Amino acid sequence: MKNVAVIGATGAVGREIIDCLKKLEFPVNSLRLVASERSAGTSLETPFGDITIEPVSEKVFKESDIAIFSAGGEVSKQLAPISREHRCLMIDNSSAFRYQDEVPLVIPEINANSAYEHRGIVANPNCTTAIAAMALWSLHTAFGLKKVIISTYQATSGAGQKGMDELLRQTKQYLDGEDETIEHFTHPIAFNIIPHIDSFQENGYTREEMKVVWETRKIFDEPDLAISCTAVRIPTLRAHSESIVVETERPLTPESAQQILQQAPGVELVDDVLHNKYPMPRNASGKFNVEVGRIRNNLIFGDHGLEFFVSGDQLLKGAALNAVQIAQLFV
Amino acid sequence: MKNVAVIGATGAVGREIIDCLKKLEFPVNSLRLVASERSAGTSLETPFGDITIEPVSEKVFKESDIAIFSAGGEVSKQLAPISREHRCLMIDNSSAFRYQDEVPLVIPEINANSAYEHRGIVANPNCTTAIAAMALWSLHTAFGLKKVIISTYQATSGAGQKGMDELLRQTKQYLDGEDETIEHFTHPIAFNIIPHIDSFQENGYTREEMKVVWETRKIFDEPDLAISCTAVRIPTLRAHSESIVVETERPLTPESAQQILQQAPGVELVDDVLHNKYPMPRNASGKFNVEVGRIRNNLIFGDHGLEFFVSGDQLLKGAALNAVQIAQLFV
Repeated sequence: MKNVAVIGATGAVGREIIDCLKKLEFPVNSLRLVASERSAGTSLETPFGDITIEPVSEKVFKESDIAIFSAGGEVSKQLAPISREHRCLMIDNSSAFRYQDEVPLVIPEINANSAYEHRGIVANPNCTTAIAAMALWSLHTAFGLKKVIISTYQATSGAGQKGMDELLRQTKQYLDGEDETIEHFTHPIAFNIIPHIDSFQENGYTREEMKVVWETRKIFDEPDLAISCTAVRIPTLRAHSESIVVETERPLTPESAQQILQQAPGVELVDDVLHNKYPMPRNASGKFNVEVGRIRNNLIFGDHGLEFFVSGDQLLKGAALNAVQIAQLFV
Repeated sequence: MKNVAVIGATGAVGREIIDCLKKLEFPVNSLRLVASERSAGTSLETPFGDITIEPVSEKVFKESDIAIFSAGGEVSKQLAPISREHRCLMIDNSSAFRYQDEVPLVIPEINANSAYEHRGIVANPNCTTAIAAMALWSLHTAFGLKKVIISTYQATSGAGQKGMDELLRQTKQYLDGEDETIEHFTHPIAFNIIPHIDSFQENGYTREEMKVVWETRKIFDEPDLAISCTAVRIPTLRAHSESIVVETERPLTPESAQQILQQAPGVELVDDVLHNKYPMPRNASGKFNVEVGRIRNNLIFGDHGLEFFVSGDQLLKGAALNAVQIAQLFV
């Protein structure tokens, strides 16, 4: 049994973490929920009963075995030394430590072993990376990935509850003929798409796009994997989708790829186009597994290429679920 | 001065055709508006004054020099012989004749000359093809395209007024907590995306995706161009966007590509990421030019590769505008 703390418990991901701890029957001895001073003292209804939110304190880490962080990079950076001092394992949803060599970046279905080499912190990958990686990894082991080209369709939940709130608010305003108010995204997102997530880098890619590159290489332990991404915010509430083209070392057919993906843990094959079944964000929302479908040989790379579509819940496999799965490695 | 008929005048594209005839100052002598029996007899307010809708008749073609069709493939197939018999030039928005060798498929900025080889019919390309081609053609002439990989973000207007109506209706129903009614698309489109446009083909691609392949090759007169596409319907009202990766024969920099695209007719360079300027469907809606931006060297193909994003009005350059531009070639 473990003493668990959730840092950032009232956010969209925080709430899902609590839910995943229950659904995965994580052996929780005590559960402490930490949030900002503003929320502290209020009570949160959880599957573990009503729990009073507490402000952050050294005591939280002293009395916890595992702390799952989802409160942004700054909070993670600030609290990491305290967590480490008290030998509390930090599982971090932020990107603060993901690119440090000594910090394992883990998707349990792919590189669980690397988690055990941690020095106090295990990093949880970016949502878009995690969702793509679920399909890419089994294809990589079976056929060898040479090139990976990704275009994303990312839900507003990627920006947390305030992202979803903004989409709903602007949509209502648009339908009512009112001026749309912009609080979170750079441009209106209602009935629009924005090819800009996170900050622009020197090379013209956004940081969100580079995260997919850096993190896939690190998780797969393939530092030279040829991979590129265009990341686009779209007016959906939850679950990210991705259009993916790969070139492979070894030849493959749609059937051989389907067979591999059918057996891949954490993947649900949704690929029956004759019955109009393929991955879609509204179906993938709330699901633990990542939907994969629209599998076909790519027209350019022929039998050494595949084109497919994935949808996965950004808040679950893209965040909370994967974090709790990492915690399970230490039970 | 020309006698012009618009077949399918009351549809979303038909109305834009009438508007484009005015905006491009097309030398209209007479304008006849043809629609289904249901609409016939009603009056349509147009920039040319109020015009009474008439049902289709042989007389329409007898008394017209040019008929612009946007009433679906079946109507086009049925009326083509009558139009030809009366030496009325048919400019066809449907896909009915696009793949016939003797029918020119024309984007005036790219292959205007081929239009003059017509035998009574000039075909107007698919919207997604036309929007991508505007950026791809000038890059092709400057750097030589070796591979083209496209993922689309297609508005509901691609399915005409009823597509837009469905998005608006379902969005209201969703926000009001009512059951969404599905009339046109295969699945709910409100707060969802559907990776399925037009019918599935033997090779696993949809017909919409293959149209981009077939038509780009035909318009560019590059029958072996390596090109693939994933076409996705998204919950926007108007203007399609596309995420495009190309490999080129000759090296290029983002700056050299920008310079080329800056001079390309029908293209508007919207590429100033430091000021959050990039193509977006809500900005591209109602514009004649196709927006191109997010230009960067692709991470995989290095200085022989480019990654960029386009948004263009599906009803304008993707349909009505291009059709009227074709008509202009015959003035």
